[in-house]
Parts: sequence; C-alpha cells; structure tokens
Amino acid sequence: MKAYAEMTREELTAELAQLKETYKSYQKMDLNLDMSRGKPSVEQLDLSMGLMDVLSSDCDLACEDGTDCRNYGVIDGVQEAKVLLGDMMENNPDNIIIFGNSSLNVMYDTVARAMTHGVMGNTPWGKLDKVKFLCPVPGYDRHFAITEYFGIEMIPVPLTPEGPDMDMVEKLVHEDESIKGIWCVPKYSNPTGYSYSDQTVRRFARLKPAAHDFRIFWDNAYGVHHLYEHKQDHLIEILMECKRAGNPDLVYKFSSTSKITFPGSGIAALATSPNNLEDIISQLRIQTIGHDKVNQLRHVRYFGDIHGLMVHMKKHADILRPKFEMVEKILEDEIGGLGIGEWTKPIGGYFISFDSLPGCAKAIVKRCKKCGVKMTPAGATWPYGKDPFDTNIRIAPSYPPLEDLRIATKLFALSIKIVSAEKLLRDAGKAGAIIT
Amino acid sequence: MKAYAEMTREELTAELAQLKETYKSYQKMDLNLDMSRGKPSVEQLDLSMGLMDVLSSDCDLACEDGTDCRNYGVIDGVQEAKVLLGDMMENNPDNIIIFGNSSLNVMYDTVARAMTHGVMGNTPWGKLDKVKFLCPVPGYDRHFAITEYFGIEMIPVPLTPEGPDMDMVEKLVHEDESIKGIWCVPKYSNPTGYSYSDQTVRRFARLKPAAHDFRIFWDNAYGVHHLYEHKQDHLIEILMECKRAGNPDLVYKFSSTSKITFPGSGIAALATSPNNLEDIISQLRIQTIGHDKVNQLRHVRYFGDIHGLMVHMKKHADILRPKFEMVEKILEDEIGGLGIGEWTKPIGGYFISFDSLPGCAKAIVKRCKKCGVKMTPAGATWPYGKDPFDTNIRIAPSYPPLEDLRIATKLFALSIKIVSAEKLLRDAGKAGAIIT
Repeated sequence: MKAYAEMTREELTAELAQLKETYKSYQKMDLNLDMSRGKPSVEQLDLSMGLMDVLSSDCDLACEDGTDCRNYGVIDGVQEAKVLLGDMMENNPDNIIIFGNSSLNVMYDTVARAMTHGVMGNTPWGKLDKVKFLCPVPGYDRHFAITEYFGIEMIPVPLTPEGPDMDMVEKLVHEDESIKGIWCVPKYSNPTGYSYSDQTVRRFARLKPAAHDFRIFWDNAYGVHHLYEHKQDHLIEILMECKRAGNPDLVYKFSSTSKITFPGSGIAALATSPNNLEDIISQLRIQTIGHDKVNQLRHVRYFGDIHGLMVHMKKHADILRPKFEMVEKILEDEIGGLGIGEWTKPIGGYFISFDSLPGCAKAIVKRCKKCGVKMTPAGATWPYGKDPFDTNIRIAPSYPPLEDLRIATKLFALSIKIVSAEKLLRDAGKAGAIIT
Repeated sequence: MKAYAEMTREELTAELAQLKETYKSYQKMDLNLDMSRGKPSVEQLDLSMGLMDVLSSDCDLACEDGTDCRNYGVIDGVQEAKVLLGDMMENNPDNIIIFGNSSLNVMYDTVARAMTHGVMGNTPWGKLDKVKFLCPVPGYDRHFAITEYFGIEMIPVPLTPEGPDMDMVEKLVHEDESIKGIWCVPKYSNPTGYSYSDQTVRRFARLKPAAHDFRIFWDNAYGVHHLYEHKQDHLIEILMECKRAGNPDLVYKFSSTSKITFPGSGIAALATSPNNLEDIISQLRIQTIGHDKVNQLRHVRYFGDIHGLMVHMKKHADILRPKFEMVEKILEDEIGGLGIGEWTKPIGGYFISFDSLPGCAKAIVKRCKKCGVKMTPAGATWPYGKDPFDTNIRIAPSYPPLEDLRIATKLFALSIKIVSAEKLLRDAGKAGAIIT
C-alpha cells in the first residue's frame, strides 16, 4: 500500500471510510483489554509458584551466618541474598543493600532523604532554591512522578538508540550546579527497549558534575530480562566503570525481582559505593529495623544461585517473546510503509515504544480506549505527562494473553491509521491544498 | 533487710564489700546475655511456623475480591487483611491502609511526608522555623530517633500511670502552634507498660491544638499483647472518640504484626480518618505501586480471623508471663524494701521500666555490661538519649530463655545494689556526715 502522505485526497478519504467501518466491527466486540502497564501475565506468575513451597514449618529459617531470619535486625539484608542479587546486578555483594518489595520505593526514599538531609553531608536539596533532574525521554512515568512530587524541575534529554544524548548531558551537568540527578533505565529502557552503548556508559562514568551531590539514578530494572537466549545486550557495569574513572560515588544503582518472581512480593536492592552505603545505612537505621529477611531467604532458596535465576528468566522469555514478536509483526503488516509511525524492536525489557505522526498520540490512545483497549496514557513517557510533540505511546505487551494481545494490537494499528488519515486530510485542508 | 538509706556507714560498707564479692562470682561466669531489645524469643517465633505452610504452589493466591495477589497493585492492601487488622485495632477496615513489614517505617514516612509536603495541604514542616513534638517520658527510643533525625525539637512530658500529664499536654498544645505532634504508646506503653486511662484518651480526643496540622502519633504496638487472660487493659478506641469529639482528623494510629508473627516479616497498618487517608494515599502512590499482598494473604489465611489471632496471642502470653513474673519476683526479693529503686508491674507489652536512685542508671547498665549482660542503654527512654535524672532503665525480658533471664536479672539487681550503695556512701561522704 502507498504511504498515506502520498495518497490523493480521494484515495485517503476512501481509505478512512473503510477504516471506520472496520472500527465499528471492533466496537461491537465489546472489548476490555489492557496494554497499559508492564505487568507480568498470569502465565509468568505461575512460573514462580514454587516460591511458595521452599519454606515450610519444617525448615530452619536461619541464614548461612546463623542469623534467625524470623527475628528483628540485619539492616542491609542477609548475605546470601546480597550474593544472589549481586550476581544478578554484576556487583560485589559488599556494595549492596537488600530492601523490601519495591525498588521504586527505594528510589523515592533516596530522593526523599536527599531533599531533607542532603547527599553525603551536602546541603539538603529542599533547602536549595532550585533543584533539577535530567530526564531522558521517552522515559518511565513513575520516575518522573517522584521528581515532580518533590518539586524538582525536570529537563528532558533525548534518548537515542545509544542512550541519552551525552553531549547534552555533559554540557548541562558540567555547567549547572542545580542539576542534581538523572533518571536512567540503562538496559532495555522503559519504554524504548534501547540499551546504553559502551561509549554512553563510559561517558556517564566520566561526568564531572558541577554539583558534588549529583547522582545518576541507574534503574537496572531489566538487567536479566532478555527475550532471546543469544541475542542479548550487555552493558559495561557502571559502578565498576565509575570506580575506574575515579568517580566512585557517582551512581545509585537499583534493581529488584519484581518482574522475576511476584511483583509486589519480591525483594529490591541498591548497589553503590562504600561512601554512599554508609551515608544511606546510617539514615536507614532511623527508618526501619530491617526488611523482610524471610522473603530474602525464600528467594535465595528458590533460585539457589544466579544460574537458577537465569534458567527461570528463560521461561519468562519464552512467554514474552511471542508477544513482542506478534505486536511487531502486526504493526509491520498493518502500518509498515504507510509513513504514519515508527516503533522500536527491543530484544529485552517490557515495552515497545511507538511514535506516531506529530499531534496524533493522544487521539490514538483515545480511539483505543473508546473501543475497550487501555493503553498507557499518551504523554506519560514525558516529564509532567506532557509530550510536546504528542507522538509517543508506550506499548506494554506482557499482560494480555496472546489472543487478546492480537486483537488489541490490531485495534491499535487501526486507530493509528484512522487518526493519521484524519490528520493528513485536516492538514491538507488547512494548507488549502489537495494531497499530491 | 533495712533500707540502704537507713544503714550506718559501717553497715553499708560491709554490705557493699559482700556485694562486690558476689559480683566477682558473676564475672567468672563469662556471661553473654541480652535484655536490651523487645525481641520475641525463639520459642515465640516457633509459634508462627505454620505461617510458612498456609501458602503453597497448590493455592489460589487470589484474595476474596478476585485480585491476583501475586501481581502489582492495590495500594491500600487487600480487603481481608484490612478486616483482620481492623478487628485487631478496633477500627473500621475502610479506615485502614495495610503497609509493608514495619510500622516504624510507616511512622518515619508519615513524619517525612509532613516535612516535605505538609499535613493535608498545610505548610510543610520543613519550611517552618521551628517544629516541636511532645514526648511522654520514659518512652520509645526509636520514636525519638525519628523526630531527632528530622530536626524536630522534642519536649519531654511526664508519663504517669494514667498516661501523659494531660494538663501539660493541653497547655502546650493549645498555646504553641509549633507543636505538631506527640508520640504515644497508649497501651502497655514502652517501657512502663502503663495504659492510658479513659480520662486520658477522652482528653486527647478533645485537644484543640493551636496547629491545624497537629497529629497524635498513636503507636498501638501492643494492642493485643496481654500477659493474662482475664487481667487486661482496655482502652477507649481513639479514632472513634476523636470522631465523637468532633476532631476526626487528629490521630494517626499505627500497628503491626511484628510481635505477633515474625518481626520483620509481618504486616503493618495505619488507621486514620478519611481525610487523612486521602492525603496519605495520594502521596503513597508516588512512593510505591503497592505492598506485599502475598504476605497479607499469608497472614489472613494463617489466622483465619481475629479469634484465631487472639488464640495465638494467648500462646505468646504463656511464654512471656513467666518471664515478667520472674523478673518482678527477683527484683522484689533482691531489692524490695531497700529504697533503691522502683519498677512497673505491667500486665502486657514487652517491657518493665525500672527507676533507680537519681544518677545511678548509667552506672548500673555499665556494671551489667562489664559482666556480660546487655541492657538498653540508660537514657534511651528520653529524647536525645538524655535522661536528666539518670534514673530510668528499660528491662526487656522477652528474648532470653528463662534460665538466662534469671541470671541476668539477678546480676541486674546486684548491680543496682552496688551502684546504689556506692552512691549513698559517696553522698554521705560529700555531706561530710555518717549515715544515721
């Protein structure tokens, strides 16, 4: 089929009429499908049911050093959980704190502490006139929500297939002392699926921020979330690279098992330098006596070691891969060559990022919703929920069953076509011209 | 035996010499005992091992409304957990949020939010020149650590057997707008074991604080932690009393299962008014996607209902009661009538509060430590760790096995006697007089 922009007004009008007919048939299906959030599917959750069997009343709930995991204490987590998550994050267990069920919560708390008490003895951010964060876009809405909540000004930085625009990052961070952080999802980024190149990681590690309390918030959410066994991205490990570059305290690195076992019932972790660890733990002792060690033990006993965890992740991949491939195939089949949108082809993570013609994303999501398919709200991938181009839509293929996903994606593609055709006709009308 | 103050110098000197001989025999025992923290004993932890069996890979992990507890979501907790903890806290489940593993963490977060964002739209406490909290003394060191951490000035208020000195509380709270909160452990208080009288609760509910954003931090840590089946304290439920008094938003009420199942692997809860709930939940959504629902389900299925939980608490009581009774008996046998100390006789909770002669507490704790028995540091029960009278010592009888506790308490009593005798002799020396 011809690209829409190359059609005559008559051709495009005819196409639009036909699309709307098809849309009506979808409306009759009374759909109720959800592609809005990066939730594992029921089938994926079932993979971890063995987690419920590894601890029983016959078990000794002591960890390897003899500590009774049932009682209070151990602020930084049990050693074997640090080893497991250290292996997963490619960090020394000694550089790790194991937290509760949510790495998002750890990130929030890290920003909250910086606001009220400052980073490693520096002025609390809350006492400064202006605090800014760099936000690679498109990015993760919950990151942006945290910085917005704390009144931190967010500066969008374009995310390329190599990672954030490092010329811009360097320029801003080196010049502006009020820039205190940057949100990064370095591997299989939310929502593009892009992984940072070696060059990007090296440049991050060599930043010379104007602010001594600048920190990279390195959300390694999808570190082991590959879709393929042999086609995988591998990043330079950031903490080690920072250390080599003489910048050991530059990074807070976050991870969790939320999309490995049960979201909400997993364990989260922070890896960082000894100086940062000391700064954090001394404050953490005020906040809590310790996190859920029994659940830490449960995870360790379930996986055994990092190999067990990787075998488990392969099962996730086997469920997710067909979903990603189907979405990409439908988009290719339905709108490939029409010149009305582009999308990423991730080899890991939880999302596909779609970019429509300018000014169409909101209308596309609305069309989907009217027909019973819920997408992530357009704009969500930008700070303050405002996509200045109104182009980006995050596709979350993980949760719906394959057949539902097929229908939802077809409706999504149909909505893209309708909204794009309408836009092109409108633009042509405004220009007072007929296309071609 | 005669009260020490009534002995002649010779009598007291002879007594002291004999006590020191006995102390030497304890030193030879190479003790390593811990009466410092309110930790459940191994025997108590064993009571909850069935918690590890109620969920298995054969179970449906959906809660009653059909929500899959394994996945993301449900910010305020699963309904049946709200019902169970609502029954435990004597609150409507609709007024409850279920959190993660630590009510201390919930209290910290509540203060942290007030610092950065204020209470229900009021000025953030962090933006005010001065913020103060009332701290009934003796009280809980971890409460005081939170307010100290946030730079909140702490004002000690005497705790009587009826509760805090309400004349003082009312006067201060009614007059001083910078007073934003008060720490309360209303039932079986830490460390005295005192429970607030009906009159005290009524007066709390009728406070007319100068500050609109004043909140009572009502830490109901020991609500169901009775030592006896028929000798129990019963308090007027504070939220309902506040509502009746036209002060519905005055209280944050905290609780958890930390000393019911496994400390660190339980569930925590906050009960408060709909206005406060809305204020908190809207902010909580930024911090996390939800807490550990599988663990909520585990607790609900383990106990079944509040009756199941109460039956369980009776087993705890059966283990704790002999420990409390033994400590009290040893203190009575060893120092009763000597006029060198007073102690509380709680019928619930986790602590006994001991008051020495003025200026002796630190020395007593030090003497215990030198002999291998760890007590809570003297001063810990006061804001900033500073007991101006140096009299109060918290006794935590729960953790050591009965036989260890017997030895530790005897050593404690011995240390009291030695330090008191030394003090009285010193005082007599200073006065240049011989006693009698």
